[in-house]
Amino acid sequence: MSMPSDGRSTPMLDSLPAVAGNGLLDRRAFLRGGAAVAAAMTGYSVARTASAEPLAEDPWSRSAGGISAATERPSRFEGKVVRTLSNPNGESRTLHARTPHHLLNGTITPNSLHFTIVHNGTPDIDPDRHRLVIHGMVKQPLVFTLDALSRYPMESRLAFIECGGNSAPMFSREPVQASVQALHGLVSCAEWTGVRLSTLFDEAGVDPKAKWFIAEGADTAAVSRSVPVAKAMDDAMVVLYQNGERLMPGNGYPMRLLLPGYEGNMQIKFLRRIKLIDQPAMTYYESRNYSPLLPGGKAYQFYFVQEVKSFITHPSPGLALKGPGFYEISGIAYSGNGRIARVMVSADGGRTWAQAVLQEPVQSKAFTRFRAPWRWDGGPAVLQSRAWDEAGNAQPLRAQFVAARGETKSLSSAGGFPNQHYNSITSWAIDGRGEVRNVYA
Amino acid sequence: MSMPSDGRSTPMLDSLPAVAGNGLLDRRAFLRGGAAVAAAMTGYSVARTASAEPLAEDPWSRSAGGISAATERPSRFEGKVVRTLSNPNGESRTLHARTPHHLLNGTITPNSLHFTIVHNGTPDIDPDRHRLVIHGMVKQPLVFTLDALSRYPMESRLAFIECGGNSAPMFSREPVQASVQALHGLVSCAEWTGVRLSTLFDEAGVDPKAKWFIAEGADTAAVSRSVPVAKAMDDAMVVLYQNGERLMPGNGYPMRLLLPGYEGNMQIKFLRRIKLIDQPAMTYYESRNYSPLLPGGKAYQFYFVQEVKSFITHPSPGLALKGPGFYEISGIAYSGNGRIARVMVSADGGRTWAQAVLQEPVQSKAFTRFRAPWRWDGGPAVLQSRAWDEAGNAQPLRAQFVAARGETKSLSSAGGFPNQHYNSITSWAIDGRGEVRNVYA
Repeated sequence: MSMPSDGRSTPMLDSLPAVAGNGLLDRRAFLRGGAAVAAAMTGYSVARTASAEPLAEDPWSRSAGGISAATERPSRFEGKVVRTLSNPNGESRTLHARTPHHLLNGTITPNSLHFTIVHNGTPDIDPDRHRLVIHGMVKQPLVFTLDALSRYPMESRLAFIECGGNSAPMFSREPVQASVQALHGLVSCAEWTGVRLSTLFDEAGVDPKAKWFIAEGADTAAVSRSVPVAKAMDDAMVVLYQNGERLMPGNGYPMRLLLPGYEGNMQIKFLRRIKLIDQPAMTYYESRNYSPLLPGGKAYQFYFVQEVKSFITHPSPGLALKGPGFYEISGIAYSGNGRIARVMVSADGGRTWAQAVLQEPVQSKAFTRFRAPWRWDGGPAVLQSRAWDEAGNAQPLRAQFVAARGETKSLSSAGGFPNQHYNSITSWAIDGRGEVRNVYA
Repeated sequence: MSMPSDGRSTPMLDSLPAVAGNGLLDRRAFLRGGAAVAAAMTGYSVARTASAEPLAEDPWSRSAGGISAATERPSRFEGKVVRTLSNPNGESRTLHARTPHHLLNGTITPNSLHFTIVHNGTPDIDPDRHRLVIHGMVKQPLVFTLDALSRYPMESRLAFIECGGNSAPMFSREPVQASVQALHGLVSCAEWTGVRLSTLFDEAGVDPKAKWFIAEGADTAAVSRSVPVAKAMDDAMVVLYQNGERLMPGNGYPMRLLLPGYEGNMQIKFLRRIKLIDQPAMTYYESRNYSPLLPGGKAYQFYFVQEVKSFITHPSPGLALKGPGFYEISGIAYSGNGRIARVMVSADGGRTWAQAVLQEPVQSKAFTRFRAPWRWDGGPAVLQSRAWDEAGNAQPLRAQFVAARGETKSLSSAGGFPNQHYNSITSWAIDGRGEVRNVYA
């Protein structure tokens, strides 16, 4: 059962059923363990000794450890697991902090690593002074303190939040060589807890002629966006907690709007005002920044939903394969239209596909981790993932997608604002050394 | 529709259906908003002006905000949301860091606030040097580096972890006056990602005569516990990630054992060795510390499962009510035997009960947030919660529970080790000023 030292041939692994080209294995072989798994994995333990004793005594086994702090922090050996900052000196422009998905696993983004974008810095808001106003076309305007809002019935839900400009480098005519963090790091997923906006709207008494509301933040950028009232009555929330604790400052402390599945900039942070109106306000942000241009010169007036999407996080650029044999292909899928229904994975650039395992429970408008077993033979491979959602939407193929949406020669040549809402396929090419590159396949 | 300034009478609120004594309302009134909610909440917005404009311009709306850091940190206004430490100077004894459940909401415990207990400090383990050995009654001993283990098929799941000694103050003959954090802070819940132990056991080839394994940590305390092999083949995992990122040092970095639903000390942190054996090892920890004594002088030899339990986090001691009217009673329920099936809430010390709403999706061996609407009339009340799990177990009433398990005069008089596995009911008495106290009712 042992694997030769060069790892090029693993008889037991070869006996596993392949279900698609270039080594993709049947996902069912890996459900709940079993002999197939044991066979596949043979050879990955680093030493196979007749007796494993005596164990080495490392320094941490011989002297007392450190004192726990009031808030736990990651190990000093994880110093690279941080957000990358587009504007680390806080110059007077937008700052992006991107999530390192290639170094994470599971579906929750820890609060320290949730992406954030701020247009004029993160405000330092005193929660006791902050107010939320609901007014405009209502029977009764309302003003809420944080304390008042905290008395309302709450609910919790998982939801991803994605910037409409996430993955913008993927519009470039030539593939940008960068990590998952640089390419797709403007999306994260957390458990949010707060008050349904419909509860507050019911109390205010919304005029039936009010079809929209405009939401505004308390930071100096005063980002404001128009949102249909129908979304408020569906699943919008005023959020107070993020993964159990109060919102992070970069995510809108002390309160933000959550519009599950909609583009991130609409989910107004530092929420201070909601005004009911009878038509969209066409604010600066929505008329200039968030109206994506199309190749023919037309533009989307609104593009609310983040559509079905997936990308592979393991392996990915910077995470080179260490010799042939078994790997788990793992990534993230999500859709602003509901639950993920299916993810297919290819190892031959999209010629053949195998179905990935979806981590249960699959939740609506939230990250779903997918996994697929793969035997790398040491030769060239192109890994892709493609997701479908319960509404029947398929992640588009890239050629069709850029024909409809346009390309840019490079990200910097895109003019005032890059293309948005990239949700097509990402392809990772693996070479004979196991290095991973971004390609268009 | 306005509420008198003393808040003692709210006609619309009075019209909501009460389903149990002392103001407990029908949970269905609060599902998906509606007029009933609007009526109930009328009066909690702090100002009801004809026009809410102009809005105050706070300082954070007039000048640029701060620079985002590579890792986001909570607002400086949330400085009280920390773990309390039993041994803040790191003396040569056990350290407990407790989760502040009264300041959290939802079901996820953020990694910075997950409880931890260490018996001789937190080791500073170099993940590249750490090894996991699986040996004993196996066909082939195995030694894993972190890199090797990272190639195996993974899975993610929510799970609570609770110290067997959590809630030990509740065994005191007189109610200890303390916060939820002090009473119940040795339990937390996270999304864990790692490798099924059954996968590794299948590879090692477990001898059919091996019915137990002993797991050992790499810290100087070298905590070790015996675990049935059946648990390994059911749902045990070797965990590498906590809420998406690598394990926190206090939770076993770089790898720990996860035994969903079992008492925390068995879920060995800093896991370095698993040895297959034919009978329990009766280690120091399991023969001395974790064999709870019973009133008659007998003791449990083993007490693995954390049984069905719940407690109310809002309101709770330290979170005084601010005047009569509507409140959401909210808390946490969990069971080591599976999913929570039902939570009932009482406002009259257990005479009458109303069913609480369970936050969906309810997951096995994980926190379930429950919520119940309540109208406080300003008079005395005693709040309780009681949970049932899908295996049919009910959280026991306190009188029966302490008759079977024993009481202590006070926590400090409990002798060498306090009683363990308290899963009976917690009662919060509310007085006319809205102050909350721990009582036995």
